[in-house]
Amino acid sequence: MIEIHALAASSAKGRLEPFSYDPGPLGDEQVEIEVQYCGICHSDVSMLNNEWGISKYPFVPGHEAIGKVVAAGPDAKSVTAGQTVGLGWNAGSCLHCAQCLDGDHNMCRSLEQTIVERHGAFATRVRCHWLWATPIPDSVDPAKAGPLLCGGITVFNPLLQFDVKPTDHVGVVGIGGLGHMALQFLNKWGCHVTAFTTSDNKADEAKKMGAHAVINTRSQPDLKSAAGSFNLILSTVMAEIDLPGFINALGPKGIFHTVGVLPEVKAPSFPLIVGQKSISGSPSGAPATVIKMLEFAGRHKVEPITESFPMSKANEALAHLEAGKARYRIVLTNDLK
Amino acid sequence: MIEIHALAASSAKGRLEPFSYDPGPLGDEQVEIEVQYCGICHSDVSMLNNEWGISKYPFVPGHEAIGKVVAAGPDAKSVTAGQTVGLGWNAGSCLHCAQCLDGDHNMCRSLEQTIVERHGAFATRVRCHWLWATPIPDSVDPAKAGPLLCGGITVFNPLLQFDVKPTDHVGVVGIGGLGHMALQFLNKWGCHVTAFTTSDNKADEAKKMGAHAVINTRSQPDLKSAAGSFNLILSTVMAEIDLPGFINALGPKGIFHTVGVLPEVKAPSFPLIVGQKSISGSPSGAPATVIKMLEFAGRHKVEPITESFPMSKANEALAHLEAGKARYRIVLTNDLK
Repeated sequence: MIEIHALAASSAKGRLEPFSYDPGPLGDEQVEIEVQYCGICHSDVSMLNNEWGISKYPFVPGHEAIGKVVAAGPDAKSVTAGQTVGLGWNAGSCLHCAQCLDGDHNMCRSLEQTIVERHGAFATRVRCHWLWATPIPDSVDPAKAGPLLCGGITVFNPLLQFDVKPTDHVGVVGIGGLGHMALQFLNKWGCHVTAFTTSDNKADEAKKMGAHAVINTRSQPDLKSAAGSFNLILSTVMAEIDLPGFINALGPKGIFHTVGVLPEVKAPSFPLIVGQKSISGSPSGAPATVIKMLEFAGRHKVEPITESFPMSKANEALAHLEAGKARYRIVLTNDLK
Repeated sequence: MIEIHALAASSAKGRLEPFSYDPGPLGDEQVEIEVQYCGICHSDVSMLNNEWGISKYPFVPGHEAIGKVVAAGPDAKSVTAGQTVGLGWNAGSCLHCAQCLDGDHNMCRSLEQTIVERHGAFATRVRCHWLWATPIPDSVDPAKAGPLLCGGITVFNPLLQFDVKPTDHVGVVGIGGLGHMALQFLNKWGCHVTAFTTSDNKADEAKKMGAHAVINTRSQPDLKSAAGSFNLILSTVMAEIDLPGFINALGPKGIFHTVGVLPEVKAPSFPLIVGQKSISGSPSGAPATVIKMLEFAGRHKVEPITESFPMSKANEALAHLEAGKARYRIVLTNDLK
């Protein structure tokens, strides 16, 4: 019997406590990863609190894992034992549905998600289908890479999916765990980058991350000065926003793209029609995109700004995140035994 | 002095009465068209009733005109006197703004619109910038072509703008003036086409126009049987619709695209994110697209199904349209003197 030592909540909003489980035999196409680092994402908190009504308890968070492959099933491909890999939100896909065949494995009809109805990476080990264990290139620091696997790919993926050009003017709404990586990616993508934030104290930092301009949406709530400016506005927040104002800030053919779950999408249709504008969303990214993202991040030295906690202090780390104090992403270093 | 004889309303919702005006000297880049036919579009009614608050009176409707070029300014290009041309919603663009330079003249920053702050084509003659007088190919019947210039291009344009593939499954919401042309275009584009209608009596006709399937949204209001089916849903209606239901009917990467002014766009964000779906709109089309649309329509014998009224009976024709009786588009034959 194999025993995985983890941290789990026994009920919604519960405190994480030591928890052990037997994962059973390794699947033929699975790999097992010895977790070295794991980032904390807001969706760990959403799942812990059962905000989406899909959580099962005991619940083990963690879906920004970096570690070494310690076992691989006989049909596992492309990764080998000893390799350092990353695992994000998705842990398995069928390979044969229309989306998988199209390369959109992140929208597989029977997608396995790392912390949905299975245990995540706040643990000594975690498993996934070989396809979702992405090798970490030497150019990327494993101690910082975790957040790239979920937050990073989530903001990077739209750039490829929506064919963002280096000549584009792009706005990023929310300079937090996701937004601070989006600013870096977009700057290196060649775009003119504007950070939208409600915190004046993030303005200087946003510029260091790659923003060419900063708009404080609290002091300039009408966004009128920015009307018609943007090809893309990438929104990373989960709060209520002035969607009509952001749509007005788009130029012709502009896209308002959200990767954060907004309470609602609500806007007049007329500006969409007159300006051929779109409102869209997207989930994480497919394996091919994760590979490209990691290579791009390595080449351009894009990396999350992280704070480190030992995994045994995950409750303290979660409290720090929930208090809005994380600057900008927390990574747990595994000290579970 | 030149005198143009037209039909105009002197106030919002007013009856059209004979009205003459002097258009002044022809602009250097303008052409003057002797109107032979003019389609009636719902936006003629919206403008006549000042629904958008931008109408000026006396108001001359008409922006689906077909006629012969009878005069051309010294700098007019690409069209010559005697040529049969069509004029749609747009009558002029600057040629030098970012959108014009990109080929998106239909979103020019100083777009001149045929019936906005100028007189339309319910008249003996109408003028426009040479760019917007599109030659009608021999393969297209001038007596039926009028509606292609506004309604037709409006539903055709998204197919190019959003890169619709012949392998796509596309739904069309509303089988009226625009929708009945959309069904034909999409069928000839090679797509699987579904008509969404609230009228059972349009089902057979929709199939004749090219629909492979018909869904009555009154008898199947939840649209659940269609979940995940469509790459594109092209909505042509101006009424309240079940937007969340239509978004649910989209497959991954699906687009809900409206060319009709909906009272509001309102939907949850979660399905957009999980399925990488979009909500978008677009206005008419640029001249290059109008040319392609006319060639495509001629080659595939796509043409509006029209009812004919003499232009002198425009009030009766408008009443017929407003009563929802038009099957499917009205064209006025010019008998004004």
